[in-house]
Amino acid sequence: MPPVKPRILRGFRDHLPEDMLPRAHMFGVLERVFRAYGFLPLMTPALEYSEVLLGKYGDEGDSLLYRFDDNGGRDVALRYDLTVPLARVVAQYPELQLPFRRYQIAPVWRAEKPARGRFREFTQCDGDIVGSPDLVADAEVIQMGADMLRSLGVHSFRIRLNNRKVLRGLMETVDVEPGAAELAVLRTIDKLPKIGEEDTRRLLENENGLDTKRVERIFDFLTIAGGTTEILDRLDGFFAEVGAGQSGAAELREVLGLLEAAGLGELATVDLSIARGLNYYTGTIYETFLEDLPGFGAVMSGGRYDGLIGTFTRESVPAVGISLGIDRLVAGLRELDLVPAGESTAVVLVTVFDRASLPHAIGIARRIRDEGTPCELYPQVAKLRKQLRYAERSGKRFVVIAGPDEVASGAVQLKDLASRTQDEVALAEIGALLKQRLAN
Amino acid sequence: MPPVKPRILRGFRDHLPEDMLPRAHMFGVLERVFRAYGFLPLMTPALEYSEVLLGKYGDEGDSLLYRFDDNGGRDVALRYDLTVPLARVVAQYPELQLPFRRYQIAPVWRAEKPARGRFREFTQCDGDIVGSPDLVADAEVIQMGADMLRSLGVHSFRIRLNNRKVLRGLMETVDVEPGAAELAVLRTIDKLPKIGEEDTRRLLENENGLDTKRVERIFDFLTIAGGTTEILDRLDGFFAEVGAGQSGAAELREVLGLLEAAGLGELATVDLSIARGLNYYTGTIYETFLEDLPGFGAVMSGGRYDGLIGTFTRESVPAVGISLGIDRLVAGLRELDLVPAGESTAVVLVTVFDRASLPHAIGIARRIRDEGTPCELYPQVAKLRKQLRYAERSGKRFVVIAGPDEVASGAVQLKDLASRTQDEVALAEIGALLKQRLAN
Repeated sequence: MPPVKPRILRGFRDHLPEDMLPRAHMFGVLERVFRAYGFLPLMTPALEYSEVLLGKYGDEGDSLLYRFDDNGGRDVALRYDLTVPLARVVAQYPELQLPFRRYQIAPVWRAEKPARGRFREFTQCDGDIVGSPDLVADAEVIQMGADMLRSLGVHSFRIRLNNRKVLRGLMETVDVEPGAAELAVLRTIDKLPKIGEEDTRRLLENENGLDTKRVERIFDFLTIAGGTTEILDRLDGFFAEVGAGQSGAAELREVLGLLEAAGLGELATVDLSIARGLNYYTGTIYETFLEDLPGFGAVMSGGRYDGLIGTFTRESVPAVGISLGIDRLVAGLRELDLVPAGESTAVVLVTVFDRASLPHAIGIARRIRDEGTPCELYPQVAKLRKQLRYAERSGKRFVVIAGPDEVASGAVQLKDLASRTQDEVALAEIGALLKQRLAN
Repeated sequence: MPPVKPRILRGFRDHLPEDMLPRAHMFGVLERVFRAYGFLPLMTPALEYSEVLLGKYGDEGDSLLYRFDDNGGRDVALRYDLTVPLARVVAQYPELQLPFRRYQIAPVWRAEKPARGRFREFTQCDGDIVGSPDLVADAEVIQMGADMLRSLGVHSFRIRLNNRKVLRGLMETVDVEPGAAELAVLRTIDKLPKIGEEDTRRLLENENGLDTKRVERIFDFLTIAGGTTEILDRLDGFFAEVGAGQSGAAELREVLGLLEAAGLGELATVDLSIARGLNYYTGTIYETFLEDLPGFGAVMSGGRYDGLIGTFTRESVPAVGISLGIDRLVAGLRELDLVPAGESTAVVLVTVFDRASLPHAIGIARRIRDEGTPCELYPQVAKLRKQLRYAERSGKRFVVIAGPDEVASGAVQLKDLASRTQDEVALAEIGALLKQRLAN
């Protein structure tokens, strides 16, 4: 048979080791912060019944699902995010004790048009508090998110907050019904930073069918600016007669106060253009941007979704969460030169001299590993020169060589590629010696 | 809209926190062993072009693929294992330096009939050495696998080895052609431990179309027993005139010798009934069983597949690997009472007294976390009794309480749920004190 061309689907990626090492390191850092806040790990399947996912993300989201009939004719889809599966879990297992804090770091799939930095499979890192309607939970997840960024070495970022009730208030003032119509307008508003004011106005008129007066009203709202206190005061004025808007503004004010208490006063601001494209948000929403990379897009976002779990059960359960986009964050860290090196891999290579000495080489590698030092045994009999070249190229620091003389005398040659020195070491001491040299 | 029933697909599972905590702990242990042997992490997509996966697992495997047309009409499938994607990666990136050692811990999908312990989504944990044709690589991955089991607390296990060339030799003696016919016979042989001799004989006759004499010959082979040396000697006799069988037996002998040098002599044995159902194996094959759970099935298996990468490129690249079935292993560890507790989660709950004291409570939680102690802030204003009940049920050891008096005096009440004692502690000291008490 002719070879099958080795290729990967467009919008998908292989993460080779040089890419995976820093990612694995990051996952470890993020898990430690989750645990510091009392969050517990959860894993849900990649595939769900389609009906579980449909209608939660809006029409565009529905159309981007990887959806198919499985071998048993079931209508299934790959998960689009980690939030809807969490909501399904909470509804399905009433024995889960509330408040429930869970985290999950896992891939999600969206059949988007691939573009620079936009992939069809990407890793989300989510933390959610389920069961609390209180805004202190909103502040807690945002505070945790800020700790995550700092733990990754990012200190210059801005958390831009808004509230869906504020946006509902705005929609009331321009006579847009809740539901699909509102979501469509919010999607247009969401594009403002990317497409600019002129195009946004045109879309609002042509695609969302709003007249000039209403578009003007929306821009009156979107251009409410200033410091946090000023924006909140002006919002109160804007919503003097709009109940939803008032309660949204009050929630925004309270979350900001709690974030202030958490020491995040300077990092958190109000941004009335933050809309979030997903259907399920009901209160607090936010996006987080790297200050040193303007125009880069949000690296961490989320919000409150008090109605989502109720779509699976008659009993409504409030919830709020945060989601880090691992892939975008890695890209950002790379641009900022903040990508961690990842934990060190094996720095010792044990060479093999000939077939007869193979058992001896295996024993040497075992002694070194038993002392806790990662080590590779060269996996075939080959010319020493080839093995040394491999050691250099793969970043080893030490090479252990044992030919027939060494085997006979119970010794090994230890080559230090950094200092270009070579010592003869007693076999019984090689493990302890390497451990000691690497500790220095 | 009426609620959508919260349900999961049959054969799929949610791993709730009590299940995920020990799994997360295990993943950490396994990663450390991979690193100790110089293996590097790789991540490949869940979805591949179907043509990449088809024909690698045999007809049964092909039929179990989750295969569908994506939104762009591409014929795609969820990965069935981690080995074929690795082979695709090696063929696709010629810049990868050989020998290449990689590990991957990730879910795979097979549309099998669900049964006790058999799932449609399950996690594989694979380590492979690519680029070495030498049997020392076979021994190295098996040795690593043994270290993995030991690191998880399993010391009583048996690695049963065989070799596809030995089985090819057997097929020659009964006139079965290589390819589909051979694989079908091997699949039948693979069932022997489950269905017994009588049913295996019947299947060999009726389904594989072998006459009684040939079936007899197969059982002459399968009943070659005794100590390792005895089996190997009898194999030499059996294959006196069969080249493939002789070279397979020589390979078996060499791998066993290398495992002896690695200190695994007592754990590794020959088992001529080990066949492995997958198409791609070419040399060493093995399965590992827990001695204390007879009949439980293999928890770790793998082998050499020197032809697989060559299906993607004209250049053949040898490879050998090991795969741990995480889910079966967890089930086995559970039966043996070896499931680790998982790392501890937050053991401190900071209660919230009323809205006015919320900022204070946030500050307390921050002090505790800043000292490195995981801690939960109760995420809403609620009756103290309710918060204490939550602390008890979720396994907290300490509860911190700060009412208006404490806020005014800069103190907190620290309740120890284990000793049922309560102290007043200065706010400035709570972080250090908890750290100290938890260290004891």
